[in-house]
Amino acid sequence: MAGIKVHGSVFSTATQRVFASLYEKELEYELVPVDMKAGEHKKEAFLSLNPFGQVPVLEHGDQKLFESRAITQYIAQEFPDKGTQLACPGKPIAPLLVWKEVEALQFDPPSSKLNWELVYKPMFGMTTDPAAVEENEAKLSKILDVYEARLSQSKYLACDSFTLVDLHHLPNINFGFGDRLSRKLFDATAPHVSGHNGQAEFQLPDRLG
Amino acid sequence: MAGIKVHGSVFSTATQRVFASLYEKELEYELVPVDMKAGEHKKEAFLSLNPFGQVPVLEHGDQKLFESRAITQYIAQEFPDKGTQLACPGKPIAPLLVWKEVEALQFDPPSSKLNWELVYKPMFGMTTDPAAVEENEAKLSKILDVYEARLSQSKYLACDSFTLVDLHHLPNINFGFGDRLSRKLFDATAPHVSGHNGQAEFQLPDRLG
Repeated sequence: MAGIKVHGSVFSTATQRVFASLYEKELEYELVPVDMKAGEHKKEAFLSLNPFGQVPVLEHGDQKLFESRAITQYIAQEFPDKGTQLACPGKPIAPLLVWKEVEALQFDPPSSKLNWELVYKPMFGMTTDPAAVEENEAKLSKILDVYEARLSQSKYLACDSFTLVDLHHLPNINFGFGDRLSRKLFDATAPHVSGHNGQAEFQLPDRLG
Repeated sequence: MAGIKVHGSVFSTATQRVFASLYEKELEYELVPVDMKAGEHKKEAFLSLNPFGQVPVLEHGDQKLFESRAITQYIAQEFPDKGTQLACPGKPIAPLLVWKEVEALQFDPPSSKLNWELVYKPMFGMTTDPAAVEENEAKLSKILDVYEARLSQSKYLACDSFTLVDLHHLPNINFGFGDRLSRKLFDATAPHVSGHNGQAEFQLPDRLG
């Protein structure tokens, strides 16, 4: 079997999304660390892997992929019989397609902005902007109302089993927001979303401990 | 065959994306107009179809879908033998997965903002913000540099045939930006992107003429 290489950073939620899929599929891989503090992702060697200058990049044999959600879909399709199935066997495809887009286009933008304000900025010694936090908390809160309704009818977002759709959320939820927001938004206002997260707890592979 | 209903607006690029896929697949459908000026998409009847209150929604038999790119994928998968194939038969799946994400997460945000400033705001009698135009033109211009490089190696974005990935771009490019930006960004700086657009020209179905 061709080896798998992930070019990325353990601090990047997009890279963590790919780790999560490899972990669920029980696949071995080599991590090639990209030093983002040194701007390595904007230099020529990395740009030849991803012209947009963003981690992660996956190499598998002669296939090179960027965009974390393209990589997780590739892994799920390429290794259907390994580890967790991450699909809705025997069920209509429509909810999986819909909720995959919802994560990327509705949930991710305010979540990523909150991570930037509440996790990354403090990590880089920068000052959190309270107005940006408030704005994106309000946006995310409305989205979580929809999730709460969905998850009171369906065990997971796409169907009654854990899929790529759920997996795509994990890095933003678990790495993310700092304890403050997780507790406030998830436990208090969205018990089903919160329980859902509890059931599918995201852990970085031990080897990255 | 179960009938297809599209709830949406001909002025919405997301709805146009769905029209384009139905057009390529040569499928008949019923358009259920949503009066967005009257805020119909934020009222209960529509929210029961899409809790996020956005057009379009597709109904096909007992399947109900929202998110335009989920709908186009559903149509492509549900009707593989109709009209244009919209895939890369016999080719690796990786580029299709990658460039599908690129459209949604890289190309669309600045393109949609430019459409808002240059097309929708004037349509609604609102004033275009020149700073927002400049910022998003700069972002889109960098993205089109990457597209130009890609399209000088590959006839279309995912492979040498026209796919869903190319189709997803059409409403923003064709409806969009006003002539000024199209000419400036596409014809002048990105001849392959421009030619690409020319080859796959987007037309609203005659029935909506």
